[in-house]
Amino acid sequence: MIITANNPNRKSWLKVEPDSDFPIQNIPFGVFITRDDIITIGSRIGDYAIDLGAFHQLGYFDGIPLTDDMFLQDNLNDFIADGRKTWRLVRNRIAEVFDVKNGILRDNADHKDKIIFRMDEIEMLLPVAIGDYTDFYASKEHATNVGSLFRDPENALLPNWLHIPIGYHGRSSSIVPSGTPIRRPYGQTKPAEGSNTPGFGPTKLLDFELEMAFITTDANVLGERIDIDEAEEYIFGLVQFNDWSARDIQAWEYVPLGPFLGKNFASTISPWIVTLDALEPFRVDNPKQEIEPLPYLKQKGKGSFDIHLQVAIKPENGEETVVSNSNFKYMYWTMAQQLAHHTVNGCPVESGDMMGSGTISGPTKDSFGSMLELTWKGQNPITLKDGTTRKFINDHDTVIMRAHCKNSKVRIGFGECSGKILPAK
Amino acid sequence: MIITANNPNRKSWLKVEPDSDFPIQNIPFGVFITRDDIITIGSRIGDYAIDLGAFHQLGYFDGIPLTDDMFLQDNLNDFIADGRKTWRLVRNRIAEVFDVKNGILRDNADHKDKIIFRMDEIEMLLPVAIGDYTDFYASKEHATNVGSLFRDPENALLPNWLHIPIGYHGRSSSIVPSGTPIRRPYGQTKPAEGSNTPGFGPTKLLDFELEMAFITTDANVLGERIDIDEAEEYIFGLVQFNDWSARDIQAWEYVPLGPFLGKNFASTISPWIVTLDALEPFRVDNPKQEIEPLPYLKQKGKGSFDIHLQVAIKPENGEETVVSNSNFKYMYWTMAQQLAHHTVNGCPVESGDMMGSGTISGPTKDSFGSMLELTWKGQNPITLKDGTTRKFINDHDTVIMRAHCKNSKVRIGFGECSGKILPAK
Repeated sequence: MIITANNPNRKSWLKVEPDSDFPIQNIPFGVFITRDDIITIGSRIGDYAIDLGAFHQLGYFDGIPLTDDMFLQDNLNDFIADGRKTWRLVRNRIAEVFDVKNGILRDNADHKDKIIFRMDEIEMLLPVAIGDYTDFYASKEHATNVGSLFRDPENALLPNWLHIPIGYHGRSSSIVPSGTPIRRPYGQTKPAEGSNTPGFGPTKLLDFELEMAFITTDANVLGERIDIDEAEEYIFGLVQFNDWSARDIQAWEYVPLGPFLGKNFASTISPWIVTLDALEPFRVDNPKQEIEPLPYLKQKGKGSFDIHLQVAIKPENGEETVVSNSNFKYMYWTMAQQLAHHTVNGCPVESGDMMGSGTISGPTKDSFGSMLELTWKGQNPITLKDGTTRKFINDHDTVIMRAHCKNSKVRIGFGECSGKILPAK
Repeated sequence: MIITANNPNRKSWLKVEPDSDFPIQNIPFGVFITRDDIITIGSRIGDYAIDLGAFHQLGYFDGIPLTDDMFLQDNLNDFIADGRKTWRLVRNRIAEVFDVKNGILRDNADHKDKIIFRMDEIEMLLPVAIGDYTDFYASKEHATNVGSLFRDPENALLPNWLHIPIGYHGRSSSIVPSGTPIRRPYGQTKPAEGSNTPGFGPTKLLDFELEMAFITTDANVLGERIDIDEAEEYIFGLVQFNDWSARDIQAWEYVPLGPFLGKNFASTISPWIVTLDALEPFRVDNPKQEIEPLPYLKQKGKGSFDIHLQVAIKPENGEETVVSNSNFKYMYWTMAQQLAHHTVNGCPVESGDMMGSGTISGPTKDSFGSMLELTWKGQNPITLKDGTTRKFINDHDTVIMRAHCKNSKVRIGFGECSGKILPAK
């Protein structure tokens, strides 16, 4: 099918800088507070936020079957639950109304004033009420690096890894939108050599994890599974995701049930959900799988996406330094494989659930997705532009992640996923 | 403080059998559908359900600050968020109105018809919209048994276990109320000796886990912690909990990030939340902790509760056989310790979150809380009353859990937490 909102030749009457993440071909979805303290669902073109609540009230969605209050909500869950047909109708309509050739809204100053805000006039909130959050572990390079550092370099990749998109459950309540400050967490750490008493205090090994995450719609009921050929129909879109990690807390607590307090103190997402539709032009072949997966995990067609990922560290009052360049296509297991696996046992997936990719490390040392790997557990500190070095993340540092796709005609991006570290209390 | 609703000498004008779990001293909270297809919050005395939506509308909560629609909801989250003072006022008022000496409702046939239902006229639903669900691993006997069976009998208890109330995140979307049938899940299992291809099919090692779970109210915001001395103020009440497990799926998938599909196909809870207040008379000393915990985990006073736990298996058309008798007091780590640990890193806990105890195994073989332990991984099958044997749970078996407290004056129970296994599709 042709997704008309993706037309690469379309231009908007709203100004869009050439390097913007949000051309008229993007049309992401988010939730924000307007200058009048109203919470609404919205979209974005260039540096303008579009109030879809007002857009709908003023009749611009006429002809599309939507409830009156569909966009006057503090989360996208109901809209996402409406399914892919509705997402496409809505996204296509927004593209049409903001098309440079369309004067219906462009020439209505009163309506423009009600619908369009400058980005600096609004505040972004979490786009969804996240029911369940699952984090996968889908980059082979990351799993190998972590296995080497935490366990045994000779058997870094565990025997199940090439057969299963390994995943685990995370905590929804501590997921925050980009810009929320993150307090350095306290926790227990392994007893020092010769001692029987664990350490306790602020983490000394605070790290980021470079991830992407996808948001689902209602997919199945208890006891039913999702076929891999249909899995992508239940993916609404993606956000960028920083799975903050306290490595010393994690290392002491994680056996045998997995990471817990080393992760759940905070996770940051970029606030605009970029639809899977908008990413269509950037599909690439799945990575070659070294061992043939079981039939329920065999995916036809191209299930990977070429999304450039970047991490920068910005010290207080300093300039930022890019410390990693990676790509979403390095994932060994695709989103469809993850979703098919997650439901093969009948586990229900609902509207607003979030699934993280796991840290996305590439094959080269400058493409690793965490400080743990980039500095090889602190052995090779990174020098920032201001001359200071980092083994892990310091207080007052801001970690900024960015993600975008680009071809000769269009650039689709995610904006920023950033968080500043506050000292422990 | 005196909780007047707990007065052990009070009797109700509603009939209560001597062995009922629901005397007027219990007054639990749940959600049900009435014979008129209305969803409401309710309570229970004997075999009667009390529609608290109607009770409130008819003025029986007059004088207590409650919103008009507080009980006309499909979950208890808002009521729980109101905090302990409100819970106590409401529970005390219900006790007063149903006191045998109080004629105000007893003698009003019209109101009784609107408020009181026989249990067989209603259907119980999930009592809360569970935001996040955490499962702990707090029984030393269980952790030792599982460590012996899955890993190394010589080092069954891992080094962190006596220092940390080990826990991990579970899946909320597959938690169902007692009575919901459970489909035997499919999944991957370890390759057979000499093969490199994992097994795939319905689990052969379907198990229950005997647990209790507590439901919290809003406790803290991101970055703040809960002091152990205040932790119990944030516990609304408890339910019984069966953490269904597929041992073969779990054994293959769980390294290094913990159990996932071996658990998240379904979990069953008893539908009535018994308040922590109602359990007050049954406090007992904490278990002696072998290693002094860190200061943030040191609890004053009695933090354990003497709750008898039982598991029975009922084959299709057969009689049930009790296979385990355990007790909530066998937990090494208390609920307050779990909650203080969970938030020590600033992880926010919200109204409607659920925290499972982990399997509660006692010191003797007949008090183990799972088939894995009771049959020692199938080595010692259990013979049921009908002469058939069980290593794990068969199709068409119903697993029934029960929990109650009892002293010379009163018995407070949880009703049933049951689920029947349907064959894999």
